[in-house]
Amino acid sequence: MDPIRFEYGVVFLLDQRLLPVEVKYMECKSWQEVAAGIRDMVVRGAPAIGASAAFGMALAAKQWSSVDSERFFAGLEEAAKGLKATRPTAVNLAWAVERMLNVARTQRGVAPREIADILDAEARRIAQEDIAVNKKIGDFGAGLINDKARILTHCNAGALATVGYGTALGVIRRAVAHGKEVHVFADETRPYLQGARLTAWELHRDEIPVTVIADNMAGFLMKQGKIDVVIVGADRIAANGDVANKIGTYSVAVLAAAHNIPFYVAAPYSTFDLAIKSGEQIPIEERCETEITHFAGRRIAPEGIGCYNPSFDVTPANLITAIITEFGVIEKPDEERVRQFFAEAGHEA
Amino acid sequence: MDPIRFEYGVVFLLDQRLLPVEVKYMECKSWQEVAAGIRDMVVRGAPAIGASAAFGMALAAKQWSSVDSERFFAGLEEAAKGLKATRPTAVNLAWAVERMLNVARTQRGVAPREIADILDAEARRIAQEDIAVNKKIGDFGAGLINDKARILTHCNAGALATVGYGTALGVIRRAVAHGKEVHVFADETRPYLQGARLTAWELHRDEIPVTVIADNMAGFLMKQGKIDVVIVGADRIAANGDVANKIGTYSVAVLAAAHNIPFYVAAPYSTFDLAIKSGEQIPIEERCETEITHFAGRRIAPEGIGCYNPSFDVTPANLITAIITEFGVIEKPDEERVRQFFAEAGHEA
Repeated sequence: MDPIRFEYGVVFLLDQRLLPVEVKYMECKSWQEVAAGIRDMVVRGAPAIGASAAFGMALAAKQWSSVDSERFFAGLEEAAKGLKATRPTAVNLAWAVERMLNVARTQRGVAPREIADILDAEARRIAQEDIAVNKKIGDFGAGLINDKARILTHCNAGALATVGYGTALGVIRRAVAHGKEVHVFADETRPYLQGARLTAWELHRDEIPVTVIADNMAGFLMKQGKIDVVIVGADRIAANGDVANKIGTYSVAVLAAAHNIPFYVAAPYSTFDLAIKSGEQIPIEERCETEITHFAGRRIAPEGIGCYNPSFDVTPANLITAIITEFGVIEKPDEERVRQFFAEAGHEA
Repeated sequence: MDPIRFEYGVVFLLDQRLLPVEVKYMECKSWQEVAAGIRDMVVRGAPAIGASAAFGMALAAKQWSSVDSERFFAGLEEAAKGLKATRPTAVNLAWAVERMLNVARTQRGVAPREIADILDAEARRIAQEDIAVNKKIGDFGAGLINDKARILTHCNAGALATVGYGTALGVIRRAVAHGKEVHVFADETRPYLQGARLTAWELHRDEIPVTVIADNMAGFLMKQGKIDVVIVGADRIAANGDVANKIGTYSVAVLAAAHNIPFYVAAPYSTFDLAIKSGEQIPIEERCETEITHFAGRRIAPEGIGCYNPSFDVTPANLITAIITEFGVIEKPDEERVRQFFAEAGHEA
């Protein structure tokens, strides 16, 4: 059940808007179709958006492969701009697009058709790396999960949010693979219901016990002592460890702190945006009011009233017990620890 | 737009399950129909449930008015038991039923037909008192609302939750009547969406500005400095000031405390259950899983997964800035203050 499938010249995006009721792929033969798929949330989740955009760049290269080099590169730049504009918060999108552009730029002078092949290979590499990275995150994170843990997660940071395996759910999968018994409580995650529709679906397929709750029940569960640990994914992490993630994550973090429950974020290096110092600089996407006023085409809220629909919020680093990456665990994250951690891992910091 | 209308021998309950799309009344000619209306949430909200049950008792008296006194009282006891069994958390239900029973008991020896008339008058009195009580709550509460206040409320503690005017929304209405400008943020209140469907609807009809948000957005709004004060209703308040209210209220209270935002509860004396010392003794209703797995008959969550659906939670008194009643405001509620307050008001404490 891959969220993204790729053949030369065609990308298939699993339409996550239809899950769990229907399993259907959207076929994309141009970068514009991939951009529409990202914008309209056919595919979502920061790492999955990044990989999709990489494939979008590969498609753009193929679209322009029979023109001269100048027009080819102009076409790539246009696709890069168009893909990056689809959604503002997840930094993996810009990261993947820039990586593809940089690979192309190193090949200036080579025939566009050959560069298109190189970009095709690079997109596949990004996708393969994503799965490998998630398994490493899972290995580091599994050590933080106790046997019999009752785990709360918010939104979907699973196989469906990545190319496969998942970040937060990758940690849970790895803990289960190590023989630990767990029970997952999935916030349904309004308005888009990623928890009820996607997290519950993929965990249930893996036979990992999962209970769906409304978002507003998490605090009461914590008070009753029914939650041992919280794990979520991330859409962008600032240099100081502030985490932008699905709306509602901040509330869960405040509640976890109030109940002395560890709060973990699982995310790859590609989700870090070390160019920005704090979460205040992360752009927060606001989506359409109808996500709140309507459900499945049926009106919920009365006509004429306003809605506010930010898709993400920012959890300050001081509420985060640790961030789990493919290079290890950053405990009590702050700017010094984050930069030192990646410098030691041999990455730009 | 009265949630409850009464003619001799017939109660009409506004079917709140259909709002805001459809305005339709359920006609009840027996206490059993009223009980079904309460159980199935045609009518909801602690004071509205109490008044409906009182009318249910009046209908029961009419149903049994042509039999002998012994069978009449046995019938009333049966109705009382049946009505009280419909929903466990809101204490106004038991309060209203007991008040009706006590009035009947004082008339032992009188002809059942006459007692039925007395109970009819008593139910109407309960309904009239409820509106008067809400206006008093509104007067005391309005003093706590500043001009230009941005107010968060959860669920619906409005006209629709009472016989009219509302408790939490009564405070807001009174503040507006006193010339204050306010803006209300209404948590949509999953799974039943009382905020999106009912609170938004009745405030919009009164031209009070209202913005609907998903429950998981409240914390982020508080962090952004967009909420000045929180006001909610209550389903049952223990002697120590612990408040049972719609699920999610506890999370809002924790978030309000973390952001130094005043958290007010507006509720009449009939919502207090001074026979119990703390919120731990309040029974919490759990409702059907399909409220979470389905929406409007359409499946959201995958088949085979479990849900947890408590309808209420308990907010401990230490998170409550004050409780606003028809006799005045109980600041920093605890058992001593609550009992002393009602003793001074001349009520059983």
